[in-house]
Amino acid sequence: MAKDPRFNILFTPLKIGSKTIRNRFYQVPHCNGAGTNSPGMNMAHRGIKAEGGWGAVNTEQCSIHPECDDTLRITARIWDKGDMRNLKAMVDHVHSHGSLAGCELFYGGPHAPGLETRTISRGPSQYNSDFATVPGCPGFTYNHEADKDELNRLQQQYVDAALRARDTGFDLVNVYGAHAYGPMQWLNPYYNKRTDEYGGSFANRARFWIETLEKIRKAVKDDIALVTRCAVDTLYGGKGVEIGEDGLKFIELASPYLDLWDVNIGDITEWGEDAGPSRFYQIGHENDWIRHIKQATTKPVVGVGRYYDPEKMLQVVSSGIIDIIGAARPSIADPWLPRKIEEGRIDDIRTCIGCNVCISRWEMGGVPFICTQNATAGEEYRRGWHPEKFEPAKSTKDVLIVGAGPAGSECARVLMERGYVVHLVDARDKIGGYVNDVATLPGLGEWSFHRDYRQTQLEKLIKKNKQCQIALGQKRMTADEILDYGASRVIIATGSKWSTNGVNHRTHEPIPGADASLPHVLTPDQVFEGKKVGKRVMIINYDPYYMAPSLAERFARAGHDVTVATVCGLGAYMDYTLEGANMQRLIHELGIKVMGETACSKVEPGRVQLHNIWGDGYKREFKGTGQLPRRENTSHEWHECDTVILITSRRSEDSLYRELKARKAEWEKNGISDVFVIGDAEAPRIIADATFDGHRLGREIEDADPQHQKPFKREQRAWGTAYNPDENPELEWRL
Amino acid sequence: MAKDPRFNILFTPLKIGSKTIRNRFYQVPHCNGAGTNSPGMNMAHRGIKAEGGWGAVNTEQCSIHPECDDTLRITARIWDKGDMRNLKAMVDHVHSHGSLAGCELFYGGPHAPGLETRTISRGPSQYNSDFATVPGCPGFTYNHEADKDELNRLQQQYVDAALRARDTGFDLVNVYGAHAYGPMQWLNPYYNKRTDEYGGSFANRARFWIETLEKIRKAVKDDIALVTRCAVDTLYGGKGVEIGEDGLKFIELASPYLDLWDVNIGDITEWGEDAGPSRFYQIGHENDWIRHIKQATTKPVVGVGRYYDPEKMLQVVSSGIIDIIGAARPSIADPWLPRKIEEGRIDDIRTCIGCNVCISRWEMGGVPFICTQNATAGEEYRRGWHPEKFEPAKSTKDVLIVGAGPAGSECARVLMERGYVVHLVDARDKIGGYVNDVATLPGLGEWSFHRDYRQTQLEKLIKKNKQCQIALGQKRMTADEILDYGASRVIIATGSKWSTNGVNHRTHEPIPGADASLPHVLTPDQVFEGKKVGKRVMIINYDPYYMAPSLAERFARAGHDVTVATVCGLGAYMDYTLEGANMQRLIHELGIKVMGETACSKVEPGRVQLHNIWGDGYKREFKGTGQLPRRENTSHEWHECDTVILITSRRSEDSLYRELKARKAEWEKNGISDVFVIGDAEAPRIIADATFDGHRLGREIEDADPQHQKPFKREQRAWGTAYNPDENPELEWRL
Repeated sequence: MAKDPRFNILFTPLKIGSKTIRNRFYQVPHCNGAGTNSPGMNMAHRGIKAEGGWGAVNTEQCSIHPECDDTLRITARIWDKGDMRNLKAMVDHVHSHGSLAGCELFYGGPHAPGLETRTISRGPSQYNSDFATVPGCPGFTYNHEADKDELNRLQQQYVDAALRARDTGFDLVNVYGAHAYGPMQWLNPYYNKRTDEYGGSFANRARFWIETLEKIRKAVKDDIALVTRCAVDTLYGGKGVEIGEDGLKFIELASPYLDLWDVNIGDITEWGEDAGPSRFYQIGHENDWIRHIKQATTKPVVGVGRYYDPEKMLQVVSSGIIDIIGAARPSIADPWLPRKIEEGRIDDIRTCIGCNVCISRWEMGGVPFICTQNATAGEEYRRGWHPEKFEPAKSTKDVLIVGAGPAGSECARVLMERGYVVHLVDARDKIGGYVNDVATLPGLGEWSFHRDYRQTQLEKLIKKNKQCQIALGQKRMTADEILDYGASRVIIATGSKWSTNGVNHRTHEPIPGADASLPHVLTPDQVFEGKKVGKRVMIINYDPYYMAPSLAERFARAGHDVTVATVCGLGAYMDYTLEGANMQRLIHELGIKVMGETACSKVEPGRVQLHNIWGDGYKREFKGTGQLPRRENTSHEWHECDTVILITSRRSEDSLYRELKARKAEWEKNGISDVFVIGDAEAPRIIADATFDGHRLGREIEDADPQHQKPFKREQRAWGTAYNPDENPELEWRL
Repeated sequence: MAKDPRFNILFTPLKIGSKTIRNRFYQVPHCNGAGTNSPGMNMAHRGIKAEGGWGAVNTEQCSIHPECDDTLRITARIWDKGDMRNLKAMVDHVHSHGSLAGCELFYGGPHAPGLETRTISRGPSQYNSDFATVPGCPGFTYNHEADKDELNRLQQQYVDAALRARDTGFDLVNVYGAHAYGPMQWLNPYYNKRTDEYGGSFANRARFWIETLEKIRKAVKDDIALVTRCAVDTLYGGKGVEIGEDGLKFIELASPYLDLWDVNIGDITEWGEDAGPSRFYQIGHENDWIRHIKQATTKPVVGVGRYYDPEKMLQVVSSGIIDIIGAARPSIADPWLPRKIEEGRIDDIRTCIGCNVCISRWEMGGVPFICTQNATAGEEYRRGWHPEKFEPAKSTKDVLIVGAGPAGSECARVLMERGYVVHLVDARDKIGGYVNDVATLPGLGEWSFHRDYRQTQLEKLIKKNKQCQIALGQKRMTADEILDYGASRVIIATGSKWSTNGVNHRTHEPIPGADASLPHVLTPDQVFEGKKVGKRVMIINYDPYYMAPSLAERFARAGHDVTVATVCGLGAYMDYTLEGANMQRLIHELGIKVMGETACSKVEPGRVQLHNIWGDGYKREFKGTGQLPRRENTSHEWHECDTVILITSRRSEDSLYRELKARKAEWEKNGISDVFVIGDAEAPRIIADATFDGHRLGREIEDADPQHQKPFKREQRAWGTAYNPDENPELEWRL
């Protein structure tokens, strides 16, 4: 199909200093877990975006010097020739598709804990980071107040890094001053308490940043375009940077030195105010701040706000709020988003659901990222997976998939893309499985985009190959029916259910009296099915993610009195998805009572017995066989309630798979060569990983052992190979 | 000096299957953050232990297959030829010093979250991990219940990994069944709920482990010695493995298949019960369980218990409790511990203080480890630092060090070892600085070993070079005095102090009314100085480590009513040092009231105003300049108390350094070439990092810019180099 001409403005080139971006799609810097130590992963992940139409593609935050070391979190680095070589792989790949490559110059100050290099950072004043540089531990990392020597040295580090970026082949260098990093610590009076010419007045606080831009410009001239990423409002009123004060003043002051603005809002401690999860923030949520920027500058402006919808992109560019669509998460969910708009394939866009699972992996540190919607994100190099290209079917063996949840529907999609004949069967009247339930939780409506994408694609694929089928609203299939079905391959994707008797990770046993067949005890599955809930709700929680706070919110909003007894932090994983802070505010606002460090001993009609998990005494001694080494827990107490909701653990719905496996002897005579189990039916996991598992089997189904993952390319240093040509890897003491 | 013959038994060789260990010192497997991806770091760190007299040196936990992927935590892997090449660097180095090299075969089940490989693990039953595979998130990771095919496949993974270990050159392979890993999940009824011949009775639960040992033995024959690491008591009575039941039964049953036992206690969720911090556990703390083992086996036994003291080692081996001293932490604090015993240099041993900062880095994930006592730990390869060897002085420039805390005393030690003339000056009457205070906190007495080691060494070094001096109990030096002193180089190591006015990481401002010059307001420094404390103590805490819980314990034990208002988890970092669980039990037991998510708004005589940090509403909207985007926090409440202790942040005591720097013009005429600042005086940090900083300057003082760290060797994949000789690093889609 052809492009709708209404979108022409999004495909109009624009000058950025000495460079020209070919359209209005700009992948803003975002982390992906590759750093510079996985150059193949970084190259392929960014390169595919250039191929998919992003006119500019940036690195993630790229540390300018070992004094900025974000370990345990993974970032890129441009410290030396080794880093330049590794980054050049990305630059070349991006250039091969006609896009600009940008490098974001990152200096974290005390927000980067230096746990690899063991360095101390410099800043305008001495402070310890408000960000949890180590998870759970805000305030852990301190910096050093720079005197003028140190301040000049830091500016020189920026200049040297910019020159290395130029020599690597980058088209844009971006001085990173958003998310409370780098020069923002000098501009922001929240951090800057200096009394010399670098502190106090706006002009003084802006001096470090302006001088840095000047020095870089002088060094790189017009060889590359100079960008700065700037938070125009730090969202804490006059104690920080406000759009109506320092924000716009700085835009005006710094514009002459720049070729492009990359703007957003917020800081690092609550950077979910920028990378807003869909639970709290909708598309374009920054515009009340961003809409003022162009009053203060004639330079082009990139803005973000989880722009996944072409209509909204058109609107924000046409109305002149921004010139270029910046995107991180939408470009991860669909690296080919611009190309799909250009080709008139809007309904093929794989829309970001705003779950922030991508971000959660950076937050926890040390882990490559993943995407709930795009199972190929991060897998482009190591597994050779292209998000839009599929290996043609290698056999004519047809496939029956039982279960159309995240794993089953994604597996069906990949197999159909490859040309296999697939029948997809589910008891529900929609594809999506568990996602249909989860998307009814407060704030999680956009998670249904996961289902919608697969539904649209499967409908198209079925039209292309009439032998494929989707059978919804079916009676659950039995093993006999599957054996008789006539498929060569069977894939079981029957998902998982919440424990009905309180089995949990602390005891690995049921909770006495917990029985969801009783009227007053519910599992989340039964909540979704509509089982009745009384006035006083007690949620017994052992799960670290969204279910407990989401059900607490749902019932509190519906007027119930809600208490949550939880052994772990309530929604602890949501700190990693940047949903945590506002979820805690919401819990507080709704008057939900949270009992932390609390486990459930017993359930009875009308009450539960709870205990503090640390109530068993700190002294340990050997008392002989059959004796616990600590005293009895003395903290058991009864609490009254009308309804108990058990969020204790999940269990695979795998009886069908196990029966088929046990009847392997009958496969051959029924023409079945393989029976596989995928997704939650193999082991419960988050939606992203269930989707990945279905995708993986679709890609690997002709391999030697498709039930188990095929090895992937690893990016690890090989002993004896050179890091730099002039480096000897052998051991030498400093003697 | 010569070895005391009493220690001869510790230097008696012992047969371990077809191998012979040359003495009774065995570095048990422990993580160090090298994994297989930093082969140089691993080689050098382990190799120095062989050089230092450890008769056997093991890898860290070494994953047998990609299905066991512990990412975000770093472990070794023996998956393929690339790993073998990287591990061989260690094996060769260990062999070059006459020691045995061991490989610990690790399969984590759901305790390994698979965040890099995205695999699912197998186990006897389906369960989710009781361990926080992601920090803060126990229960996050699930496994798959293995049927017999899967169970056999898993055993074959062990066999294949053992063969790769043999082919890499290892002398020992260790089937890791401690810390709730691998075959322990089959033996332990806490996890194993099977009803077939692999579950139920002891014999059935032991079957998986025994078969695995049999299969490995059949494959490797006597080429290597076969070891198993086993927790003989999981410390939760009859629901787990007890020494008096399954523990000894298993020792008896499995002994015929083994050449060596490596035993301990506990599980992974509370593995501080094994790797016990000195706060709770003293040397030999496992012996009430371990002393029974030799009743059940004739095979040699390695046991652990933070053995740093040669007398205790002698006692436990002579009395026949164990045959071989196993050690992880003592071997990190002093890699040359056995050699120092052998050479009669007992007082040179650098004793582990049991702070578990080494472990904290593995726990948080993605980070190389460090040691509080041994600044060279992890630095052997990348910085070329040998713990016992020092580059001779490169100049005759003498050095004045002001401040004999962790940074100053370590810097003095290194410089004196190198042959520099050093004068070390401090106002206290002891070296050790802040450590002298910290070691008076409840449970932290052994942290004084940090001071004791340096004191002993400095006294010895001064005897060797009479020009060196230590001047304690001195009046604080002024800048004038320093300029007049006559030293060529000046190092300022004056430490830091706790904020006296409540400056904290949330506001970066003082707390109104917080003023430690008032009688009812104290800093921790004033507590150590003996300032008076009233009956009702309110601790205002913004610090994530040990100070708040330690002072709470101290005052609660002394009969005060203690409340802690804390913005972050109380002692959150202590979850990483494995002190967390018992500290929480202790807080509960002592009746200390903890108010979480609570910050301080104001301090007044007799009361403090506190607020919930999430009390400001979850809705954010743009309200114009000067307006906060959220509603006012409505949760402020007054709380009565007699004394307020401010644990809000630390600030460098750097005025002396800044004055000297400002008077740079006067240096030359006073014969001063350099003035440096190190440790907390540059920026507050943990003791390990302050010690490191002093050490670093001592090593690098002749470099071009000694104030700033010299670059180190990096171990990062270089794009374009081969991982395996037959591998093409170029991008190729799976098409």
